[in-house]
Amino acid sequence: VPRGRALLWTTDQVALGVHARADAPPEALARKLLLRTLSDLAAAGAQPWAVLWTIAAPRQRPLAYLRRLARAFLAEARRHRVAVVGGDCTTARALVLTCSALGLEARRGTPGRSGARPGDVLLVTGRLGDAVRSGRHLRPVPRLAEGRLLAATHRAHAMMDLSDGLARDLPRLLERSRVGAAVRLESLPLAAGLSGSQRAFASAIGEGEDYELLAALAPADARRALADARLRRCGIHAIGRITAARGLLWLKDGVAVPAPAAGFSHRWRGSRT
Amino acid sequence: VPRGRALLWTTDQVALGVHARADAPPEALARKLLLRTLSDLAAAGAQPWAVLWTIAAPRQRPLAYLRRLARAFLAEARRHRVAVVGGDCTTARALVLTCSALGLEARRGTPGRSGARPGDVLLVTGRLGDAVRSGRHLRPVPRLAEGRLLAATHRAHAMMDLSDGLARDLPRLLERSRVGAAVRLESLPLAAGLSGSQRAFASAIGEGEDYELLAALAPADARRALADARLRRCGIHAIGRITAARGLLWLKDGVAVPAPAAGFSHRWRGSRT
Repeated sequence: VPRGRALLWTTDQVALGVHARADAPPEALARKLLLRTLSDLAAAGAQPWAVLWTIAAPRQRPLAYLRRLARAFLAEARRHRVAVVGGDCTTARALVLTCSALGLEARRGTPGRSGARPGDVLLVTGRLGDAVRSGRHLRPVPRLAEGRLLAATHRAHAMMDLSDGLARDLPRLLERSRVGAAVRLESLPLAAGLSGSQRAFASAIGEGEDYELLAALAPADARRALADARLRRCGIHAIGRITAARGLLWLKDGVAVPAPAAGFSHRWRGSRT
Repeated sequence: VPRGRALLWTTDQVALGVHARADAPPEALARKLLLRTLSDLAAAGAQPWAVLWTIAAPRQRPLAYLRRLARAFLAEARRHRVAVVGGDCTTARALVLTCSALGLEARRGTPGRSGARPGDVLLVTGRLGDAVRSGRHLRPVPRLAEGRLLAATHRAHAMMDLSDGLARDLPRLLERSRVGAAVRLESLPLAAGLSGSQRAFASAIGEGEDYELLAALAPADARRALADARLRRCGIHAIGRITAARGLLWLKDGVAVPAPAAGFSHRWRGSRT
């Protein structure tokens, strides 16, 4: 273990029929498993170090299927320079994959979810919405470099990754930080193909599976982050503000509006806990 | 992370219907999950530090069942002074539990499986056999203190835990160490209730799920270990020798005999990989 660096440790799962359709190719499952796990480290501004993983698969799964799964997992790990140091394989009555990852804490420490302060600017990386319908959820990009930049260089007060959608995830950060927020719908960076319709907003805040970063920064830090060319490569947008008043306010052209109705209940999803 | 201590990291799984009967109580599953994982650390002579765990469970499982599972897991972790630092919970089409554990390496390093030398004495802790039939496999005792003693105080050259039975596990150690062994059947410490019958020997070497330690020590170290009161509390027995000639020889009263026929294929087991 590198001297003087705290360790971060996280675990995540992919269950067939829950996090992906039953007919998803093994490569997609392997990729999603690793990237979900690394996204947790990205949200902490941490540097991935090593992973362990497990496969529980029905005996009927042909060896070729498991080989494709393993090959894709190892290739993806190589791509992100994270060492696969072990794992375990067993038969089971359903396909369940798990991954646990160790990461090295950012030099300034981990932002966490509890540090957002009134007046902070809310930033998101990339684009939101349409991840499931478009299939993008099967190849999420963990925002590792961006997480480290936001945590260390731009001194994020709080940070998390968006897996369940802004409307479900942001309240968790607000709760932990004991603050509120106002989010401008027209500022949301919508995924390509989404117009500014009610359905588009609903997808952007409620569909989930984006694995983009949400961070709260002091206004001066946020200005610098928005101008940082390394963050602009993946896209970085200010979408609202942290408020002292508790609760989450959705604004449309400066006027408070109800949260755009979600109603996204993917048969293979929804059931997540 | 404590200074100058290497980390050991392991993961294990318990799948309902594979590692335990479908009707096993949740407490038994939780206990077996933790203790299987800790047994890996015991075999390395390591000190458990912290664990993460995951639950994948069908939606039909009542919350009360999951609560019992979690409560038992936490109680067992407390009992072994290991911190449960996190986890993940999801729905899935079958009940699959995983646990990953971090341990601190023994002061003399980890014995591993590759260090056995010709002339070494083979020691086992506890008693072997009858673990499945008697239900003992649902409450294995991880030999943590014993593992540390064997690794650090008694300088074991090689060590492993017996999960699949001596007849399947010992060859793995021999293979890695590029040596052979001769095991005296009459020296095997049989579980209470097993006589010296062929069936008893078959159970002791083939039934598996004992989670006892098998270690190879230099003769003088083995003598000291056999006299160590802290090891004698759980039982410590010499069962044979490491030989330069490859292969595994079973001896009965000094005469080579075929391996007592196993034929243990528990419906819920056997399928392990």
